[in-house]
Parts: sequence; structure tokens; C-alpha cells
Amino acid sequence: MHAEIFALGSELTTGAKLDTNSQWLSVELAGAGIETRFHHTVADDLPAMLSELRAASRRSELVLLTGGLGPTADDLTRESLAQLAGVPLVEDAASLAHVQECYRRFGRTMPAANRVQALIPAGAEVIPNRHGTAPGLWMTVPPGEIGGDGGCTLIALPGVPAEMRPMFRESVLPRLPRGANLIRVARMNLFGAGESAVEERLGDLTARGRTPEVGITAHEATITLRIVARAPDEAGVQRQFEETKRIAVERAEELIFGEEDETLAGCVLNLLRERGETLAIAEVGTGGRLADWLTQEDVPDARAFLGGLVEPTETICLGAAVAPGEAASEVRSRWGATYGLFTPALDESGAERAIVLATPDREVRATYRHAIDSAIARSRLAKAALDLLRRHLLGRAT
Amino acid sequence: MHAEIFALGSELTTGAKLDTNSQWLSVELAGAGIETRFHHTVADDLPAMLSELRAASRRSELVLLTGGLGPTADDLTRESLAQLAGVPLVEDAASLAHVQECYRRFGRTMPAANRVQALIPAGAEVIPNRHGTAPGLWMTVPPGEIGGDGGCTLIALPGVPAEMRPMFRESVLPRLPRGANLIRVARMNLFGAGESAVEERLGDLTARGRTPEVGITAHEATITLRIVARAPDEAGVQRQFEETKRIAVERAEELIFGEEDETLAGCVLNLLRERGETLAIAEVGTGGRLADWLTQEDVPDARAFLGGLVEPTETICLGAAVAPGEAASEVRSRWGATYGLFTPALDESGAERAIVLATPDREVRATYRHAIDSAIARSRLAKAALDLLRRHLLGRAT
Repeated sequence: MHAEIFALGSELTTGAKLDTNSQWLSVELAGAGIETRFHHTVADDLPAMLSELRAASRRSELVLLTGGLGPTADDLTRESLAQLAGVPLVEDAASLAHVQECYRRFGRTMPAANRVQALIPAGAEVIPNRHGTAPGLWMTVPPGEIGGDGGCTLIALPGVPAEMRPMFRESVLPRLPRGANLIRVARMNLFGAGESAVEERLGDLTARGRTPEVGITAHEATITLRIVARAPDEAGVQRQFEETKRIAVERAEELIFGEEDETLAGCVLNLLRERGETLAIAEVGTGGRLADWLTQEDVPDARAFLGGLVEPTETICLGAAVAPGEAASEVRSRWGATYGLFTPALDESGAERAIVLATPDREVRATYRHAIDSAIARSRLAKAALDLLRRHLLGRAT
Repeated sequence: MHAEIFALGSELTTGAKLDTNSQWLSVELAGAGIETRFHHTVADDLPAMLSELRAASRRSELVLLTGGLGPTADDLTRESLAQLAGVPLVEDAASLAHVQECYRRFGRTMPAANRVQALIPAGAEVIPNRHGTAPGLWMTVPPGEIGGDGGCTLIALPGVPAEMRPMFRESVLPRLPRGANLIRVARMNLFGAGESAVEERLGDLTARGRTPEVGITAHEATITLRIVARAPDEAGVQRQFEETKRIAVERAEELIFGEEDETLAGCVLNLLRERGETLAIAEVGTGGRLADWLTQEDVPDARAFLGGLVEPTETICLGAAVAPGEAASEVRSRWGATYGLFTPALDESGAERAIVLATPDREVRATYRHAIDSAIARSRLAKAALDLLRRHLLGRAT
């Protein structure tokens, strides 16, 4: 079963508001084994809505719509569903009573305009709304020119997330036919190579049509593998995850630092805590970014991050002249930490600079080159520094 | 002229990621007088992309696409544009050289997979990408079965916002035809009061239907007024801006710190530079966030930010015990700065804590209460600290 999701409203197509309903509904549908192939955002424009709805209802078995159920002239969902099915709008007595009751409870009289919220396409069902005035709609179109080969179920919900979400979970989700399979996603997080280099290493793991599918995305130099398992039950899902993770580890073990939401900073702090060790930092090129991450991930009761220094240049440390990189040892001793970590200046010329890790018995260095994508340069350098420490803690740094 | 915007990628239709590009592009297009009627989000599926693209290119004169330009097998934008236009993909020598150069500067060899990033539909133009490997594409389809009555311009950009946004502003926006009225947006940035309090102070300025329209948005405690002027020429636009800004200043002057993209950190650094003064910081509750902002906004040749310290607790400064807030004077003298600024711990109990500013002749304090919305607590505290310094520099701090 395939789904398409519509978000209706000119406030979305003008960019005045950001639609988050479609993302939320996609995740809910995936959990029920239903795959979403399209999101559509359409302005308050009847011909535009109808043209998109016609294509969707022919192509997919499930169409979810949010928005356009309010009382004003630009709320066109009711009208467009009626025109799609070729049926008139009729007043639903229970819906009218509900809208009137909402106003009565507020101590107000229902404005005449709100009467349209009780109109439904003839033959449609009403979905109750406990959190607002606008009822939802459930409409079925049989197989044919409008409904396509499999027929189509169209479900309209209000655009307000606080109304839409409980309505979906209480009145829609339980009635949806389940896909044959559960669909679950597991993530593995990698650092230390580019997206295409990782793909090369992983070989057929990311091939199209593989079971389970493995997708690759990159965000600020962190590479994420998304394993999408489809199986009739949880045990089958877990078997697919395990087998795929095992292969990923075989092929790229030293790049993998965590799963799901785990960050490099969190990973490094966990490793330090396991060993009862601590860290202090001296930042130049990362200008506070590293401290920001470490302080967000650190645990107050088991602190591994002791403190840090931000200097605008490599050759000054707390007012004294130092050699580039010397600040690693300096902060290590100032804070009495097991390790001192230093990030060099971002050198626009692309020349090699050294990230320096001061350990109890020696200095470990990693060369770093500033990349052209300066928007993520700071994050990339901060991650490269954390990764040097991670590899050292795992006995893998040179 | 009507536009449609595509966001491509299964990570969007599964709900794993939220598309924010379409909203951003809609706002930019509106600024050029171009109305967006549809957003489409499509999975990595060639037939699905082609069916949506065909409808869009027939219906609208402008189609913008983001995503799907990466080097992996599920990046299908190049292929779908070529199939839409019925032309082959050909290798673009300049694009290939660019991709190779990106890798060379990193000291790496381009993986074979990245070669596909230099493929373009025959007849398309390349849009240069200064921030990443994937070039953009500009393709024109003449009036007819594919291009519709008016023909269609299709423009593909990378999905990474840090690459997409400058490419759009530098290489796309200046070449787009303009609508009848200019639509321009001016922004004023405020700090120090909540969204509804600001709205109350501004009175009828934010009323619906006012000319020009003024919208209010809040992001991490910064309030932004968006003034949307519509006029046939630039002089008319500027008259609307000036008149509205004058009223905003009359009603909320002490809250306004900047316009357009100006940040509080940038504003404070400018004030310091004008006076030939400098700043050092001691961060507890902001954990590096303040240094991160200040180092991003500071100018290497006229540095006003001298350095900073991040400590996990208020009562220790560089290994020595201190009273809470004493670190402000400590960093001021360590770095020889005009001012020392201290951020207190985020106190979950909601008790009052002091932000401390050490000046050449005294200490200035501002009380701060941790708010419940902890997701933005760090940014809010960092801004409150910058605002204390800003008000002091303007002679407004108590």
C-alpha cells in the first residue's frame, strides 16, 4: 500500500509557515508498514488542489490531507473532496452540534461562518475532533477512473498539529489496513571519510533493491547509514538489522562511532568515563564549538570534560606566547586533565595544520586541511579533533 | 509567473528528515514577485519523479528542485531532468575539473563514483557551487507538450542548505524574471521581551491588511519583524520601509539591536570596535556557545574578542576556587581586555542567577532566570549576556 500526503494552505506555499505535519505522518505510516512516496503542498486554489488530488487518488491507495478545514473562504478541502468524488456537500447534524457546543463552552455564540465546518461530501464519514471545531473527513472512492486500480481512501484532518495528531492516532491509525510488513529504521553513524568513499568501502551494502535497504546521508561530515528493514514481525526486523550491521562493521569498523542519535562528543565522553579519565581543550579554529558540544553531552555527576580555552590565534595562550599546538599540554596541566586537545586555526590557503592531543606520556598529532565548504568547516574540524581522541582511546591513533 | 518547488529524497518522504529548503525558496521567490503554488516532495524513484515533473513543467513556468545531485545511485535528479527533456546525459569538463579540484584541495583522489556529478543533460547550463562538489543545473524547455504554453525553466540545486542558499542568491535569483510589483522584505531584530509583549508594544503595526504588512517571528529568543513591502518601484518600497521602521523605533527602540542578518554578537563586536575596546569571557551555563558566536562574527584584522574560558562550574576558574561571578574580573585581567563577561550556570530550579560584566571601573550585573524551554536555554542566556554588554555600551544598563 502506498500513501501520499497533502498539506493545504497558501501560508505554506508562500513560506510564511513550515509544514511539519507531513513529516510526522510519514513516520507514523512507516510504523504501520505503509510507504509514503509523495508529499504535496498546495496553495488555497481549487483547480490546483483538484489537479493534484486527481493524480494522487488514481496512483495511490491512501491519501492523507491536513489543513483547509477552517471556516473561512480559503478553506477548500471539503469542496475539493466533494468535486473530486462528484458528490454534493451536505450538512452533517452531529458535526453542526459539535461546532455549536465548542462555542457554547467558550460562552460564545457560533459565528454564521462556522456553519460550513459541518458540511461533508455526501457519503463521507466524520472523524471527531476533541481538541477543536473542525471535524475530519474519511472518504472512500471505489476502483475506477478516480480511484485507480485499487480504489482510494482519502482522509482529511485539521492542520493544527495539536488537533491533527491525536485524531490520527485515535481514529485513523487503528482503522488503516496494515501493510504486510513492519518497516523499521536503524541508524549507524560514521566519521573519517567522505560519503562516496564510505559507499565504495561498503560495496553492495548500499545497492538498490537489497534487503534490507541501506541509504547513506551526510550532515556536517558525519555519515549516517539508514538501514530500512521490512519484515512481518519484530524478530525478522532484528535479524535484518543484525546481519547488515555485522557486514558494515566488517567493512568500515574504524569509521563507525555510534548508533541512532549518538554523537562523536557523546561517544568520546563515554569512553573517557569508562576509563575514569578526563579532558581539557584549547580551541582556535573551532572557536568554542567543541566546548559547546562537550558541555551539552557531559553528565554533571560523572564529568569527563573539565574545561576549555578559546583563543583567536595559535601563538597565544592565556596571554603568554606559545608554539602552535603547545596549548594542548598547557590546558592539560592547567586543568589537571588526563588529555589536552588543541584545534588549529582554519587555514584558508588549504595548507596542512596539526590537531594536537597531549596524553600523559606523549603528544599525538593528526594533520588537518581546511576544506572549501567553509559553512561546515568549524564542525568538521571539531569532529576531526574528537575523532583523534576517539581513535587514541581505542588504541587506533598513530 | 508561477513556480513549483521540488524536494527530492526518500529521507524526506519517510520522515527521517524535514525539508526546510522549499519554505526558504518560497520566501526568496516571493521577494522577487514570483508566486509558488506547489511544493512536491518525492522519494528516490525515477517514475515517481518523472510523473510529477511532467505535470509541473507543463503547468508552471518555473520549477526549482533541491537534492538528488550527490554521487550515489539514489541521486536521480540529473537522470530525471534528462529523461524529461528527452536528451542524453553528457559529461561537463568544467564540472569534472571542479569536483576533482575539491578533492585535490583535501589531499584526496576523487572516488570514481563522483564522476557522475559532472554529468549534465545535454543543452543544460551548469550553476557553479563554491561550497561543495555538486554543481547545479539550469535547463530550459520550450513551449510545447513538455514545457506547456509558456515553456519552463527547471533549476536543480543541491539539498545541503549551506550550498543551496548562496547558489540561489548568487546565480539564480539575479537571472529570474520579475513580477509586476516588487515584493521586498526588510527585517528588524529585537531582544529583551517575548513575542506577545513585543506585539502589544507595536500596536496596530502588525494588524492584518496593513500596508506594508508586518509579521512577527521568534527564534531562540530573538524576535524578528518582517516588513513585506509591495510597490511598483524601489522608491515606493523604500518609502514603505522607512515609515514602518520609524514607527517601530518610536515604540520599541531599546529592544531593537539590528537589521537583516545582524546578530547580537555582531552588534556588540561592532560597538566595541567603534570604541577601540575589547572583550574576554568566562562561560559556565553557555558552555562555549558565546565564544562560538563571537569568533564567527569577529573580524581578524580588527579583533574585539580576545579569548574565553569554559568551566563546568561557577566556583572554579582555571583550577583556583572563586566566588560565583568573580571569573568576569579574572578573564578581564588575564586577557587584558576592556570588559570581562561571565555567564552563570543554568539553574534548573528557576532561581535567579547573575550575569556579570566587569568593566574598567565597576561590576554590572543582570539577573537571569532559567526558563522551562531548555532546548533554547543556552542560546537565551548567551543572548542575555550579550544584551547586558550592548546596553552598557549604549549607556542603558542599570
